[in-house]
Parts: sequence; C-alpha cells; structure tokens
Amino acid sequence: MLALYAYATPNSIKALIALEELKLDYTLHPVNVKQGEQKRESFIALNPNAKVPVLVDTESASGESFVLSESAAILVYLAERHGQLLPGSGQERARVFEQLFFHASALSPSFGNAGFFTKLAAEPQPLAQERFSAEAERVSALLNDLLSERRFAAGEAYSIADIAHFGWFWRRAFAGISLDAYPHLSRWYAGVEQRPAVQRAIARIDALATSA
Amino acid sequence: MLALYAYATPNSIKALIALEELKLDYTLHPVNVKQGEQKRESFIALNPNAKVPVLVDTESASGESFVLSESAAILVYLAERHGQLLPGSGQERARVFEQLFFHASALSPSFGNAGFFTKLAAEPQPLAQERFSAEAERVSALLNDLLSERRFAAGEAYSIADIAHFGWFWRRAFAGISLDAYPHLSRWYAGVEQRPAVQRAIARIDALATSA
Repeated sequence: MLALYAYATPNSIKALIALEELKLDYTLHPVNVKQGEQKRESFIALNPNAKVPVLVDTESASGESFVLSESAAILVYLAERHGQLLPGSGQERARVFEQLFFHASALSPSFGNAGFFTKLAAEPQPLAQERFSAEAERVSALLNDLLSERRFAAGEAYSIADIAHFGWFWRRAFAGISLDAYPHLSRWYAGVEQRPAVQRAIARIDALATSA
Repeated sequence: MLALYAYATPNSIKALIALEELKLDYTLHPVNVKQGEQKRESFIALNPNAKVPVLVDTESASGESFVLSESAAILVYLAERHGQLLPGSGQERARVFEQLFFHASALSPSFGNAGFFTKLAAEPQPLAQERFSAEAERVSALLNDLLSERRFAAGEAYSIADIAHFGWFWRRAFAGISLDAYPHLSRWYAGVEQRPAVQRAIARIDALATSA
C-alpha cells in the first residue's frame, strides 16, 4: 500500500499526479503546512527536512515500510517501478533528468523565493525580490523556448519532467508569473492540465485544503 | 569522445569527479565564468541556460553529438551508461535520487544564495542574507545527522550523491559554511576528498582557473 503525506502545494501535487497517471491506489494524509504541521515531531520522524510530500510504501521489496522524501525522487521511484513516464534508456531518458534537475535547481527555487520576497518577507528586500522575480521570468522564458521545439518538456513524450514543471506553474500566481507572455508554455500547460489524471489530482489536493 | 565545458565551480567539479572515478577519457574546455564567457553566443548554443558544466558526447548511440546540461543529470547519465556509482534498483537507488534532489533543490540554492547576499549583492539585504545563511546551516546540519547513521550520503556505498554534495562543500567558504560544527560531515568530506579520482579532478579544475 502507498500512503502520501501532502498538502495543496506545488511539490505535493507532483506526487499526486504521478500516482493518478499510474492508476495506483494510495491513501492521502493531509499535512497542513499553513498551520506548521510539517514541523510536528510525528512528521519530522518521517522527513527530518520538514517538507511535503512524503511517500510511504508498505509493500516495498524489503518487507519494511520505505519512506521517501523529495517530490522528484518520488516521481523517479514511481516511474521506474512501473516502467512508465520515464524512457528506459538513451537520450530521451537523459533529457528527462536534465529537465528534472533544471526544475529542482532553477525553476523551483526561483518561483519559491520570488513569492517569498514579494508576499511573505517581514521587511522589503527590493534587491532580493528583483533578483528572484527576474530569475523566475528567465527560466519561464527558457522553458517557453524549449516548448517551441518540443511537444513536452523533455521531448515528444509526456514524462515526469512535465509533472514536475506543472506543479510550480499550477501555483505560478504565488511567484507572480503569468503565462500570457509565453505562448508555448500556455499551450503545454493547457494540454497537461486537461489530462484526466491531472484533473483527479487537483480535485483530491484541493479537497485537502478546504477540509483542513 | 567526451568533452566537458567547465570552470572551477561547485557544479563543474561534480562532472570532473565522475569522469575521473569512471576512468573515462575526456577533453576539458574552460569557460571562464568570472569573465562572463558562459553568456557568449558560442556557449549559449550549447546551453541556453548559460551554466557550466556541459557534457558533449560525440559517441552517443544516435551517432550525433549529444549535448547535456545540469551537473546532476550529467552524473546520472555517466553512472547509468557505465553501471557504476548508482545502484541499479531498489531502495538504495531511491536514496541516491532523494539525496540528488535534496542537493539540487535545497543545499545548492541555499549555499549559492548565502554566498551571493553575503559577498556579491550590490546593496545589503540583511533579511535575505540571514534567510539563506540560516538555510545553508540547516541543510548542513541535516546532512551531518544523516552521516551519523550512514557511511555515505545515500547509504553504505559511495555514489553520485556524494559527488554532488562534495561539489558545494568543496566551495563551502563562499557560503560561509565551516565543517567545524559538523563532525560527521567532516569525517565524510575528508574521506571523499582523499579519493584519488577526486584529487585528480581538483588538480585539473584548479589548473583551469590559474591558466585562464
């Protein structure tokens, strides 16, 4: 059995989308990050880094529960285990990892910090706000250019790289990013958003936020 | 043939270490980031994201040159192609990806931004500096705790996760991080640093900086 600890966050939705795309059974456990529940002792025992999502696999090969953090590591684990959403070899596979690490190291921190310094910082930090907002626009423009040449983020096939990028573009308002200036990103986003698995993931995760 | 475009940076050294560990032949092409060479048109043609390192594989399966960016994606590509430094399956493999994405999304941006706001920002941004310096210490402490239970970052075996973390700890002074408060990190760092392949990589990359 799979259990996912998550909330309505850019990183959590990635894991839900993968679970839904792979048609897996899983239980969903809300961790209300707005109330700081990710810092409770019971959650820190699962992930000392105090971040959602966390996947718990009670049917792992070892027979013991396997607890895995980092949304992109969860995507790789699920994709490899089920042989979907990630090419098995070759350049197409390397392109997926290139996009996953571009997401983790550039897109995700720039979106997160742009939103933090614009909306949450205790005092204005104009240079920091400008730095991260400009970087969020820069990486969005880079991805828009890529998507002028490719159907999906890593090539012609939908993959976990699209799922990773979708998570933050789903929450792009926090980062102050609009798709209006990015026609290829807009086309890609609309295509991913209308996938039935993505719709199911959004419905389940939105229900967490409204019920908590 | 493999060609690596690199400079004496935290991300570049990772690719050199993997190439040296795998005993591969490669040519090394300096991209002097202190002089902004990563923004030249000739380099942007290789990597529109304007970052080192970039690997060019002229013996790829397709017969065409394969150009790959993102240091961690290069690590995965080399490790999978040669069947080393990354377990082939199971929980040990998932732990390596967990650490690679912890590195890419948490450790690397916090170290980079801590250094930027302490040493390079045009105006003081005290709240931003404090935020990223505290985050760099927090992730260092998390890794120190992990290394109190594991010989290496992702388990008992040396892997590309160690190579990724080593890159930024090799340049920890930029981030204002000292190993003094972290005994398990210190033990791990010393063990990785003394590996012959790591010594060769450091010698080759340091020669780039002094020759340019």
